[in-house]
Parts: sequence; structure tokens; C-alpha cells
Amino acid sequence: MSKIKFSIRVFCVSMLFGGSALAADWQPLSDKAPAPADNPTTAEKVELGKMLYFDPRFSSTGTVSCNSCHNLMLGGEDNRAFSMGVHGKTGGRSAPTVWNAAFASSQFWDGRAPSLEEQAKGPVVNPVEMGMSDLEKAMSRVRAIPGYRPWFERAFGGDDPMTVDNAAKAVAAFERTMITPNSPYDRFVKGDKSALSEQQQRGMKAFADTGCTSCHSGPAFNGPSMPAGTGFFMKFPTYTDNAYVKKYGFMKDKGRFEVTGNKADMHLFKVPTLRNVALTAPYFHNGSVATLNEAIRVMARVQLNKTLDDATVADIEAFLNGLTGEFPELTLPRLPGTPGWSIVVGK
Amino acid sequence: MSKIKFSIRVFCVSMLFGGSALAADWQPLSDKAPAPADNPTTAEKVELGKMLYFDPRFSSTGTVSCNSCHNLMLGGEDNRAFSMGVHGKTGGRSAPTVWNAAFASSQFWDGRAPSLEEQAKGPVVNPVEMGMSDLEKAMSRVRAIPGYRPWFERAFGGDDPMTVDNAAKAVAAFERTMITPNSPYDRFVKGDKSALSEQQQRGMKAFADTGCTSCHSGPAFNGPSMPAGTGFFMKFPTYTDNAYVKKYGFMKDKGRFEVTGNKADMHLFKVPTLRNVALTAPYFHNGSVATLNEAIRVMARVQLNKTLDDATVADIEAFLNGLTGEFPELTLPRLPGTPGWSIVVGK
Repeated sequence: MSKIKFSIRVFCVSMLFGGSALAADWQPLSDKAPAPADNPTTAEKVELGKMLYFDPRFSSTGTVSCNSCHNLMLGGEDNRAFSMGVHGKTGGRSAPTVWNAAFASSQFWDGRAPSLEEQAKGPVVNPVEMGMSDLEKAMSRVRAIPGYRPWFERAFGGDDPMTVDNAAKAVAAFERTMITPNSPYDRFVKGDKSALSEQQQRGMKAFADTGCTSCHSGPAFNGPSMPAGTGFFMKFPTYTDNAYVKKYGFMKDKGRFEVTGNKADMHLFKVPTLRNVALTAPYFHNGSVATLNEAIRVMARVQLNKTLDDATVADIEAFLNGLTGEFPELTLPRLPGTPGWSIVVGK
Repeated sequence: MSKIKFSIRVFCVSMLFGGSALAADWQPLSDKAPAPADNPTTAEKVELGKMLYFDPRFSSTGTVSCNSCHNLMLGGEDNRAFSMGVHGKTGGRSAPTVWNAAFASSQFWDGRAPSLEEQAKGPVVNPVEMGMSDLEKAMSRVRAIPGYRPWFERAFGGDDPMTVDNAAKAVAAFERTMITPNSPYDRFVKGDKSALSEQQQRGMKAFADTGCTSCHSGPAFNGPSMPAGTGFFMKFPTYTDNAYVKKYGFMKDKGRFEVTGNKADMHLFKVPTLRNVALTAPYFHNGSVATLNEAIRVMARVQLNKTLDDATVADIEAFLNGLTGEFPELTLPRLPGTPGWSIVVGK
């Protein structure tokens, strides 16, 4: 997509969905996530994907799994500013939540992965995350575990189902089931007017009136529905003439520009979902803001050039707490062993 | 206990339970673990203990939980020589399995904890494991998470149930349910003669005839039943005139001596369970031996001064594979959140 087309698109979307125009368009979260045509969600893939998601043996040290940084027992991430990967290394961006990632049209803060399938491959070979030298090496570990073969056969069939692409497909299929419908907000917009408190309802209105819905629209509060792979990005920070930008170091990370090299992408970040946002502190791409309360103030000033009073901030915070959904019950997977030896090396 | 009393005890136990005299005394694993009088196992404690066991937020970095090194999805440990704790630090001994730890009369390789309750406190404040400066600081994190309070109240009652001792009791209660009965071996000794293959049955006999049962006796293959807190220790290595001792660095770690300072405890180690041993490579207190096959050869030579032929080693290995039990199905706990902020600090 050219720079110009991209800028026009962001502008138009911003107009269409901007401000309180969206206030009436409150949508509940679906209890099913869409899947790409070439990777329909099946029970077999989901179960295999769950095993791979929780298995730490595909990191160089054998200590880091997807769940290490995207913890499904918590808010789908690790409550750290920067995640800690192999050998205690840390990266430069805060882990996004895996909950409802299925409803995003691109993945990573800079949208560099067009799908969950592509995203799943990234951390495995990131030297500060799972630290494998290449994906085939990780896959050779999967292949060396006899108990994984029947799972791949059931999930994918064919002569050689144990491939990197199929492993990624399985993890993505699992992640498409990691969604959290039926939050108080969802019950409210479906008609249960007691599901949100009066304060939360005030916060809901303030959220729209302030303009938060310009970007955080749609059922996942991550922007309008867009074709898979597209991504919905906004410039952050938009208003730089304030103390927050310096205090929290928002100019340091150039966002999507660091992937594309296009000037139009300078400081563009994917609009993250606000589902379960109460559980994902610290906030922003650099995890620099400790509390949701402060994050609301920062967003109002830095993105909308508004300074909110304490009561409004508290109301919006109460509303955002109403976006915490119902988490599916998960059984802990049994990971197939390597009887008599260990696939993990290293002391 | 004085040095002399201790030595006599080990000697007598060795005589009583020694060698093939025990061959007829094959015992299945109980499907219930004993609990101390002051910490009876209750459903409420088990559920709370499970949450604490899986919660990484009580490590300094927020990245290490009990399950990180004692992985219940695998063989109850991490398949590494030395576990990796906060900031990628590693210790000097291999993590013992948590499965069936409830059947040991002391904990840690050197038996320095007399109970699971005491053991549970150790890693939290070990600088290379969970890295908290002290237990009260860890407990203040637990207390700061509002959702934990009702669990402590239900499990323990009283005015101030959120104590270090109660947290340890809950984790211990949970661990007492982490047992793996009904292995092929168990089914065999209960009468199902088809549960072990012919090779496994040969291996079972060879295991006793070689003298392995001198120490690895009883239902958990970790020695005779002893009063809680006692521990059953053996000198390792016993025979030092062989290449293995040097190759695998067995003289380096002085074992229980490093805790007690008693010369009688020099190179004494707790006799570990052999339950699920096929899943806990690499082997020995220093994780120096990569395969179970090699571990069997090493044990025969270093502890019993015997050199086994390949066929016998293979038979014993087949038998030991028959000690892999049935693992309880676990639901993944939902860990209570800290809405709007994070208890974890650090980048």
C-alpha cells in the first residue's frame, strides 16, 4: 500500500468512526473469532496449538513458552514493561495481550505480522524472546518429540504434517479460541442495564464524548473491521507539546516506520484492543505508564489534546474495568515427553 | 541427630532393606499422600495452593513461578541440568520433580527442608530462583492482590489468614495432590500381569538383583518409609575409582555436608524417587548425565561397583519407563488480577 493511500485511509476511517458519532454504535464481542480460509479452526488444531503454546522446550533454554509472556492465567501478557525472554534478556516493547488478538487485523505493535499464523513464528526466533536460531531448528525439536506426531497427523493429515507452517497454524487456531465475551459491557449493550454501574455508564458516555471511540471502536475496541492483514494504525504521540511525551519517552520508538522505512509510518502504532485493559498494566508500547488511571489522562492529552478532570478519569476507568470479560476454562495440557533424554540443553 | 546415630541408621536401613531381599516387596503407589496433622489437605487449600504455585508475580521479575522449574505439564521439573531463575540466573543443582514429592520424608537434594511446607518457602527467596529479598516482601505482594483474600479466608479462616506459613501450607496441600499412581508397574504389582512387557519384567528382576532396591525401595522407589522430616540419604558417589566420577564431576558437590557441616554428611544426598524418572532427564543432582540409559550404568558402577551389560541396562531402562504414572487432569487456574496497575516492577 502506498504512503498516500495509507494516510487517506487512516484519515477517512477517522472521519467515519470519529468521536461521539460512534456513541450509539456499541457492539458486543462475538463469541467466535473469524478464521482464514486456509486455516479453519478445528478441535484437533486447537488442542495441538494449546500444547505448543504452553511448551517451553522450543526456546533455546527450554524455559520460555508463548505463555511465559502471554500468560493465559492473567491478562494474556506478563504485567511487565518489557517481557523477559531467554537468559533474562528483555526487549523494547511491552507484550500485547493474547486475549482477543484474533479480532485484530494485524499483529505486533507495528503490525508487521498480517496474521496470527505469522505472528506465532516471530518470538520463537527473536534472540531476546525464545532465542532459537531458526524456525527449522525449533521444528526439529518438535519432530524429535514422538508424542507430537499423532497430534499433527490428526490436525493436518498428509504425509509430512510436522512443518513450521502447520505448527503456526495450530497455535493460531488455539489463539482464535482465546476470546473473552460476556464482559459487563457486553451484557449491558445486549440489554442487561444493571450490568454496568451508574459510574460505568457515565464513563461509557465520557469515553465516547472525549473521542476515545475515534480509534477504540468496534467490538474489540481496536478500531473498525478491516480486511485481515491490513491493520488499523494511528500516530502516537499525536500531540507532542506536553510533559507526558517527554516523561514517558514516547518519541523514542518510531513504531511502524521501523518496519517499513516509510516516513508516513513514523510513530504509527496499531490501535490495541481495550478488552481486559484493566489487567494489562503497565501501559503503552513501552510499558512506561504504571496505572490505567494515568494511561487515560495520557491518552486524552497526547492523542486528543484534552485534559480530563479527576472525576471523568475515574468514570472512564470504571467503564474500562467493565471490559474485563469471561475467560474460558482451560485444562492444562500434558506435554509429550522424551523418555530417557531431554531435548533441552544448557546449564 | 548426632553423626554416629545418623551413620548407624543409614547402615541398619541398608541392611534391613538391602538388595534382593526386597525383591518380593514390590509396593504400588497410594492414590493419596499423607498430610501432617497441622495441615490436613482440604479442597480450599489445594485450589489456593494451585493458584500460588502457578503465579509468577511472587518472583522479583514477575516471570518465575513454582511451575517454571517444576513443570506439571511435563515430568514435574524442567529437563535442564540447572534451572533458570530470575534474570536468567542458574543454580548448582538440578530441579527435583514435584510429582510424588509428597512421599519423601524430606525435601531438596540435601534434605534441608523437613516438609513440603518448608520447601515451598525456599525458592521464593533464593537469589537465583525467584529472587525475592525476603518472604514477607513476597507475602506483601500476595496481600496486595485483592482476589487472593477470599481464598485465604476460605482455606484458613481466622482474622489474619494471609501469612507466609499459610501460603506455604496451601502450596504443600496442592503438591500432596500431585501424585501419579496407576503406572504400568502399579497395575502389574496389583495383579495385571500384562501391564509390564516381558522386557520390563526382566528389567524389574535385574533392578532388584543388581541391588538398586537397596536404596530405591518402597512405593515411591525413594527408600523405606521414615518419619516425616527424617529423610533417607545415601553417599554419592560411593565407589570413586571409576571414570564416571571424574567425567561427571560427582566429587564437586558435597551434598548434605554443605548444610550440616558434619563430616558424616559428606556427599550424602537424598535418595530421589524413581517415579516418572524417564521424564526427568538430565540426571543426578548436577544434571550431568544426559540419558537414562547412561544413568543406569553410572549408578550400577558408582553405587554398587557393578558393570552391567547392554542388555541388562536396556531391560532396566524398560522397567523404569514402566514407572511413568497417570497424571491428574488440572484446570489452569485463573489468577486474580490487580485491575488498573501491576504488582510487577522491572524492565
